[in-house]
Amino acid sequence: MKDLIAALPEGRVVTDPDVIDSYARDRTFLGPGQAAGAVLARTRDEVATTLKWASAHRVPVVPRGAGTGLAGAATAIEGCLILSLHRMTAITELSPADEIAVAQPGVITADLDRAARAHGLMYAPDPSSYEISTIGGNLATNAGGLRCVKYGVTRDSTLGLEVVLADGRVLNTGRRTMKGVTGYDLTGLFVGSEGTLGVITEATLRLRRAPAEPPATIAAEFTSFRDAAAAVAAIIAAGCQPSMLELLDRATLKAIDDWKHIGLEAATQAMLIGQSDAADSATAIARMGELCEENGATFAAVSSTPQEAEELVAVRRLAYEAKERLGACLVEDVCVPRSALPEMISAVEAAGARHDVLICTVAHAGDGNVHPVFVFDRGFAEPPPQVWAAADEVFRAALRLGGTLTGEHGVGLLKRRWLALEAGPVVTDLQREIKAVFDPLNIMNPGKAI
Amino acid sequence: MKDLIAALPEGRVVTDPDVIDSYARDRTFLGPGQAAGAVLARTRDEVATTLKWASAHRVPVVPRGAGTGLAGAATAIEGCLILSLHRMTAITELSPADEIAVAQPGVITADLDRAARAHGLMYAPDPSSYEISTIGGNLATNAGGLRCVKYGVTRDSTLGLEVVLADGRVLNTGRRTMKGVTGYDLTGLFVGSEGTLGVITEATLRLRRAPAEPPATIAAEFTSFRDAAAAVAAIIAAGCQPSMLELLDRATLKAIDDWKHIGLEAATQAMLIGQSDAADSATAIARMGELCEENGATFAAVSSTPQEAEELVAVRRLAYEAKERLGACLVEDVCVPRSALPEMISAVEAAGARHDVLICTVAHAGDGNVHPVFVFDRGFAEPPPQVWAAADEVFRAALRLGGTLTGEHGVGLLKRRWLALEAGPVVTDLQREIKAVFDPLNIMNPGKAI
Repeated sequence: MKDLIAALPEGRVVTDPDVIDSYARDRTFLGPGQAAGAVLARTRDEVATTLKWASAHRVPVVPRGAGTGLAGAATAIEGCLILSLHRMTAITELSPADEIAVAQPGVITADLDRAARAHGLMYAPDPSSYEISTIGGNLATNAGGLRCVKYGVTRDSTLGLEVVLADGRVLNTGRRTMKGVTGYDLTGLFVGSEGTLGVITEATLRLRRAPAEPPATIAAEFTSFRDAAAAVAAIIAAGCQPSMLELLDRATLKAIDDWKHIGLEAATQAMLIGQSDAADSATAIARMGELCEENGATFAAVSSTPQEAEELVAVRRLAYEAKERLGACLVEDVCVPRSALPEMISAVEAAGARHDVLICTVAHAGDGNVHPVFVFDRGFAEPPPQVWAAADEVFRAALRLGGTLTGEHGVGLLKRRWLALEAGPVVTDLQREIKAVFDPLNIMNPGKAI
Repeated sequence: MKDLIAALPEGRVVTDPDVIDSYARDRTFLGPGQAAGAVLARTRDEVATTLKWASAHRVPVVPRGAGTGLAGAATAIEGCLILSLHRMTAITELSPADEIAVAQPGVITADLDRAARAHGLMYAPDPSSYEISTIGGNLATNAGGLRCVKYGVTRDSTLGLEVVLADGRVLNTGRRTMKGVTGYDLTGLFVGSEGTLGVITEATLRLRRAPAEPPATIAAEFTSFRDAAAAVAAIIAAGCQPSMLELLDRATLKAIDDWKHIGLEAATQAMLIGQSDAADSATAIARMGELCEENGATFAAVSSTPQEAEELVAVRRLAYEAKERLGACLVEDVCVPRSALPEMISAVEAAGARHDVLICTVAHAGDGNVHPVFVFDRGFAEPPPQVWAAADEVFRAALRLGGTLTGEHGVGLLKRRWLALEAGPVVTDLQREIKAVFDPLNIMNPGKAI
């Protein structure tokens, strides 16, 4: 460690165990291994110096942003060096004419969005944690969010990257242009690779025109989750093109109600929150309301003011914190073809009932992306066997329905044991070999993602 | 060859030199090498059998679709086996509820679009050749098109792939869902890899809602190409979100006029054709018209009927064939940040003047994607030195302006000599190593793309 401390400016290397521990976790229950140290890098060259040292000494490196991940990708492993990018916070360029921004990995997601809005633009990806998550973490996990039903995930907004490899070499992938097909898509390969291929030190990101008006918003309540899921299918099939379409089950609503007193009706089993930011948003939202009513909604109301709309969306954004008040949480993230949403929901309910586990479910319903949150007693260091048994049922149901283990959170440590079910042996082999091209010593976040 | 003929159903292997020759070219001037044979595959298993044979005998394989490529990726090389996928023409699934289609590689692009339209959906990517190009070729080159200014390129519509590797192993990448982050993005890696990593035998493609009404269309004429380019920048900056924004220079318009007599005015140096398929398309098109006039348009007219609009777009789609009437063509494909469009156009004009080369230019202007077509005498087997000198200037200008060598046509054989200027040594090395993971014997379309 002395060599590393000497090679970097003062204050970059942390060795105090308590401070290291504050950089060792993400938002999962996973207990970290004991890290040898943490580097709080401020420049690309400091990242390169750090990785060269790690390569020379064969020390595994766990890169991280804000630690808001939900799958353990940023969880420290025994003997590792933590490499935090959260201090690289510059937006180095924002070009309204080209609709691009160039950002360092420690930029907070919502800060980039706000910077873009000052020019009539927006940065579309908005994971629920976007007020505290970093661009670097979003890139590492290919983060989704509420708006991605219309605007796509982080990869869809990424044009180019600057990356430092494990041996300290620096490369630039992609481009500043809207299109480009020179060579293989290395940009897409790094996005979502959970820090296992290299460390992203700068990203060229696509901005989009921000809608001129605030979105129109509707909330609808249902006496069954399946009815709500049917309304989702109808809304998509009718071409309403929502910019947000979120579904909350009763357990989630109850957790929010217990905390914030939102006046939850006794009969309400599900709430659907939809938005449209299109030029004809009023028409689109009215149609969504009709389709909710046709599918059994007991109540459907269009927000009359932007403030009312914001309050509704705030309810959705409170969901995760509300559940954390109930106990420790295993947050899952299956994604199925949209037509399979009702069946997926039934499978989640059945798994919860069979194993007597409280599951609160929210869904980015327009994408078929379902987040069942398995709640367990904080007394347990990790989820008890019945939780894993229920989760196993949920994963297998998602795959059976043509879906995937993870829509937007990533594999990290949490989903490794199910990975082979989805990827198959050929893909598994290829992924290991691709990792070896970028990281032949296997020091980049080993044991994660693949 | 006897083993291969015996291993495949009758009629799959072509050995007649004249027939082989008909599968040996794309739409470039490039003369092919003499192929040993051609396989016209009908199933995934036939592809696997073919590739296993090629691996066993170390025979290079050149996969192809319809041969509409413009960079030589499908040009036969000496001693190769041509593997044509154009007979695998099934659309095996089309799900309106999930907005996806599953298609074999030989499906004609426009046929898939028409099949989707029957359900109120569309397949967005529309390279100019879409009436004759195949989905497999579009995937291999990550094809763009006119609509991609709004809907993105082929990769943006690709969810998952079935691929046969050089050794005959079959893998499935990606998913059927809108989102998914299990493992590395192998789907994105195969798209645009020009047949150098494996052979795509099936693709799961994203469909989108087709607009309810025909798009609104505007055409504007300018007395300078730079004015037209400035109008493009203004249209993008104003947030008009065109679904098409095409720019044609006088040389192109003259070639079309000489052929189809479109009534070209003497003073017209450029024409801009814009479309909007948004819900407020009339408003968007009217605004585009104002911006054209503010930027010096001598004439700007909104089409009053869909038929009139189709005729205008047909003018754009004639551009390539009109130029082919003038002589042999080197079709180029640089892409720059949109703000650099006027400078890029000036650089093209300067290169043409300096080297006394006729260059006809069209641009997918909303993307900054410029197609300068260098016309030369058919007597030459390949472009004469002054054409290459002018092209070299154009490529270097694109890179200097922050752009790329190829926006949508690919590298193929044509752009290899400039590749290192854009990719740099680290990316070049990584790409070679990635290819070796998938194709360790280097039999898949060797010497192309990277």
